[in-house]
Amino acid sequence: MGNTQLASVPEPKYWHLKTVLSEALDTEFAVGEVLPNERQLSARFGVARATLRQALEQLELEGRLQRRRGVGTTVAPPRLGVAVGTDHGQDRPGTDDDLWQPVDCVDAVPPAAVVRLLGSGSGETVHTVQRTRSADGRVIAAELLYVPAAAVPGLSAIEPLAGAARARAVLREFRRLGLEGQDRAVELGSAGAEDAKQLDRLPGAPVLVVTTRHFAEGRTAAVGVATYRADTCRLTFGESGAVQVTPQGPDRRAS
Amino acid sequence: MGNTQLASVPEPKYWHLKTVLSEALDTEFAVGEVLPNERQLSARFGVARATLRQALEQLELEGRLQRRRGVGTTVAPPRLGVAVGTDHGQDRPGTDDDLWQPVDCVDAVPPAAVVRLLGSGSGETVHTVQRTRSADGRVIAAELLYVPAAAVPGLSAIEPLAGAARARAVLREFRRLGLEGQDRAVELGSAGAEDAKQLDRLPGAPVLVVTTRHFAEGRTAAVGVATYRADTCRLTFGESGAVQVTPQGPDRRAS
Repeated sequence: MGNTQLASVPEPKYWHLKTVLSEALDTEFAVGEVLPNERQLSARFGVARATLRQALEQLELEGRLQRRRGVGTTVAPPRLGVAVGTDHGQDRPGTDDDLWQPVDCVDAVPPAAVVRLLGSGSGETVHTVQRTRSADGRVIAAELLYVPAAAVPGLSAIEPLAGAARARAVLREFRRLGLEGQDRAVELGSAGAEDAKQLDRLPGAPVLVVTTRHFAEGRTAAVGVATYRADTCRLTFGESGAVQVTPQGPDRRAS
Repeated sequence: MGNTQLASVPEPKYWHLKTVLSEALDTEFAVGEVLPNERQLSARFGVARATLRQALEQLELEGRLQRRRGVGTTVAPPRLGVAVGTDHGQDRPGTDDDLWQPVDCVDAVPPAAVVRLLGSGSGETVHTVQRTRSADGRVIAAELLYVPAAAVPGLSAIEPLAGAARARAVLREFRRLGLEGQDRAVELGSAGAEDAKQLDRLPGAPVLVVTTRHFAEGRTAAVGVATYRADTCRLTFGESGAVQVTPQGPDRRAS
């Protein structure tokens, strides 16, 4: 009774191929190695090109393969564990151990949903700080941090500033707030044109969208909308009391 | 200087169409409404069918559209905020306010990556509890919770049990452990055949994979691998000190 396998379900052909391919990746190929071309692969596994492509797309979605223009399809390294939302202050904007690099800052009108989260009036000025986060020398996430001018009333004399200098001035003032906490939402999205450029991906590439609300003085002091590359990142969350580590992802083939 | 828009980037045709379509969804259609067919839509927007399909796929990825067999393409309701990893104990397996429903329990061999996370020997017996989580009467997540037999040494007399009864017996024993904390990783995956059946999706559908390590007595007492429907779920994370809420997702069109 207790030793039976979980109920078996008929699998589409490409799914079975994906499993077979995945095993081949484990045993025959090294990280970074270029796969044989589609014609060779479909011949080897005795499947139609359309079936092969479906399987390759799945493996790309799962982070096992990377397609690079001019290079071909390569075996991806394990996803990078990226710490999000620990209470070590590393995601408090403007602190010394902030992992984000300021890039630019404009006073743009935020999207309607951000205005709702901020609980601010739609006509209010909002400093929009553009930041990026890197690992191993590559940008892995791009963020827009929306700071209503009303949350940083002490901010002045930033008009002559532009770009990263302006962003740093806003973050410096933001740091003075006594932040009380954060909450976050994670969801699937697709990279917009600007994010795609920052992340070195094509527009429409899948991203993990992390929306963070920063609370101070009983209100929402800022909202950050960050897009992480879904192909290479695994977001890790610690909880107070637990040691913060970045576990290797489970073997998704067997899920 | 500070009032310019973020740097503009040339957009592919389907991306522009997506933006236009997205606005039409906001203004002309209600949640649940069926969209005109592809022929009609491509005629209205003056684009090729291939371009239209790319735009529709993006909108589906972003959770704005749903495709249902026999119904067509409908306007999706806002994603559901699903709380993950608060410290209210609701994700402590086996507690009274556990949000997961036990479905089955087998003593299967876990995937190699789970064995690594558990730090257990590869030959060790591992109780694999299959659970589902529902919202509004629909299954939104499926989980395999791996509990090494060594972590629940007091567990006995479960051999005659099968299915949900066996799962409940394991969870009951697991509850006795003094859990010290959890950590989590979130990444993009695709639904396996079994998960897809539970989630009422096709195999390969995008899912958010949440890997949770439960710590007790200085070791990893269990590992849960949960797959959440990426089309309908937005995972929310609270932090101690912050009020736990489920913010509306940002307006992804504008990212």
